[in-house]
Amino acid sequence: MSEAPENTAEPGRSIPLSQAQALALGQAAMQRIGYDAEQARTIAAALVDAELCGYPALGLARILTIDEHPRNRNPRTPLRVIHETPVSAMIDGGNNVGFYAVHRATEIAIEKAKSGHFALVGVHNSWLSGRNAYYLEMIARAGFAGIHLACGRPVVAPPGGRAPAFGTNPIAFGLPGEPHPFVFDMATSALNHGDVILAARLQQQLPEGTAIDKEGYPTRDPLAALGGAILPFGGHKGYGLSLTIQALGLMAGAALPSGEVQDFAFLFVVFDPALLMPPAQYKQQLAELLRRVAATPLQPGEIAMRIPSQRAFEERERRRVEGITLEQRIYDRILAVKG
Amino acid sequence: MSEAPENTAEPGRSIPLSQAQALALGQAAMQRIGYDAEQARTIAAALVDAELCGYPALGLARILTIDEHPRNRNPRTPLRVIHETPVSAMIDGGNNVGFYAVHRATEIAIEKAKSGHFALVGVHNSWLSGRNAYYLEMIARAGFAGIHLACGRPVVAPPGGRAPAFGTNPIAFGLPGEPHPFVFDMATSALNHGDVILAARLQQQLPEGTAIDKEGYPTRDPLAALGGAILPFGGHKGYGLSLTIQALGLMAGAALPSGEVQDFAFLFVVFDPALLMPPAQYKQQLAELLRRVAATPLQPGEIAMRIPSQRAFEERERRRVEGITLEQRIYDRILAVKG
Repeated sequence: MSEAPENTAEPGRSIPLSQAQALALGQAAMQRIGYDAEQARTIAAALVDAELCGYPALGLARILTIDEHPRNRNPRTPLRVIHETPVSAMIDGGNNVGFYAVHRATEIAIEKAKSGHFALVGVHNSWLSGRNAYYLEMIARAGFAGIHLACGRPVVAPPGGRAPAFGTNPIAFGLPGEPHPFVFDMATSALNHGDVILAARLQQQLPEGTAIDKEGYPTRDPLAALGGAILPFGGHKGYGLSLTIQALGLMAGAALPSGEVQDFAFLFVVFDPALLMPPAQYKQQLAELLRRVAATPLQPGEIAMRIPSQRAFEERERRRVEGITLEQRIYDRILAVKG
Repeated sequence: MSEAPENTAEPGRSIPLSQAQALALGQAAMQRIGYDAEQARTIAAALVDAELCGYPALGLARILTIDEHPRNRNPRTPLRVIHETPVSAMIDGGNNVGFYAVHRATEIAIEKAKSGHFALVGVHNSWLSGRNAYYLEMIARAGFAGIHLACGRPVVAPPGGRAPAFGTNPIAFGLPGEPHPFVFDMATSALNHGDVILAARLQQQLPEGTAIDKEGYPTRDPLAALGGAILPFGGHKGYGLSLTIQALGLMAGAALPSGEVQDFAFLFVVFDPALLMPPAQYKQQLAELLRRVAATPLQPGEIAMRIPSQRAFEERERRRVEGITLEQRIYDRILAVKG
């Protein structure tokens, strides 16, 4: 799930870290929380990739969110494939954090797509998976097209309603390309839940038209919104997408852990472009399309056309060399995580 | 493609037609245009279903749009599967109208999903497919989940751009359910192209924030918008979706007919819920979710929560008995179609 930084409310002094230092910091903390060395390395790799790509809110500070998360206090069991075919897997995440369970689901989807040219993989009984683009990039770099969506517990109200019915329900796509895959990732809510919490802490107003209070009236007060609901992005179309994602999430087992049809789940639909055309031809056409879109004549005052995921790839190249910075306060708290 | 009525600008006297009369009218006209009896019946069935479901803009008046369409003057060849696997088909639509070619693609996707639990089907060299919900309902009633998207020639500008780069690029989903499937269908543009043409004819202003003129400045003047571009719905998120659909459409062969990467194509991704869970269980959970959403407490002044596709199913039940009405002017013009 794409959420904003609960743990970086006030800016402070920052310290530089190399990619290797950041990985070591993250892995050690996740091991103290109770994940084994390999699991902790997997989780740290996703967190550090978010830092490299310029999304610190989904980076190492997430360790503190995981550590303090109510579900982190519940027992964990190993991931378990509860139903499987050559092209599909239904995975009980065993209450493991999504950074691990959804990563494993991605690996399974890729393995299955390699032999069957298609994979449908669902994960439930897991929580907090970070930046969806990370998983879609894995799928696209393996040569496949991927559609991923995640549903959650109610925080978003349908238009006309005054109570939440959906999670922030992100949808993400990954397509194989040269030199980079094409990845697009978005929440179907007007705001992420973390944005509202952060605005409340900073005593800032929410943007117009993004939330309602508990009576159903529009509000820009984050505290009123926390007692009410976030709205979908894009009006009735965003509502339809959000409901569709909640409905597709049931196929990933959202209702299996608790019997509750409005709960967390993650679904992957992965397919091989070679089913329809030579992959090299597809990649070349996609590159041409992105070149065309990037070359769209600009509106007065605009500097450049933005193509989803391109900035993140460039940032990552730079930060792999230059390293990242982490707020001292966050760094100290991660070091102090006891699990 | 979801487009608005080019042919129903001014209301006039209407005549009643039974479902059978409407089908006969549509089939005969499509045969005069040059489609064979079975093709014409297929096309008429889709048009009449749109009438029954309460979408006259995508109904029988579309025959006039087809008849007058520049592509209707180009030669047609039979549909041809140019690449095929047990779970996929790449279809050259042979310049046949989408109402026929996309329907046939839907049938092929369902056939393949029945044996392989999955299907990926692309169609290019076709145009004008009508109401996407129609095809998704077929897929869902066959017991499968379907994701469908269509890309087109540039009429929609990316935010910050002053020239079009995308079609109105609809995305649609169908999920098997009881008593009805769940179907959600939307364009990723703020307006359909037909809406702008209609507003120009009626000399009406466009809604705020839906279009730009040829210099890239916001406009509510439909003539200025026709010289400029429509905007995506929902800002940067709608832009990302629209670009993603154009990119996925390449996999359906959008660039194959003309070498042009910004052209028409239709992609179906179909999968069997049984890959992950018993279909009866899925349908039951989906029904429970829709019940919960429908029961969301309402905002002050709201009358009922709207669930995508439910109104259309109810309208159809009623109109199957009561019949439809068609403007006399449209009826006369359809009767006069010579092909």
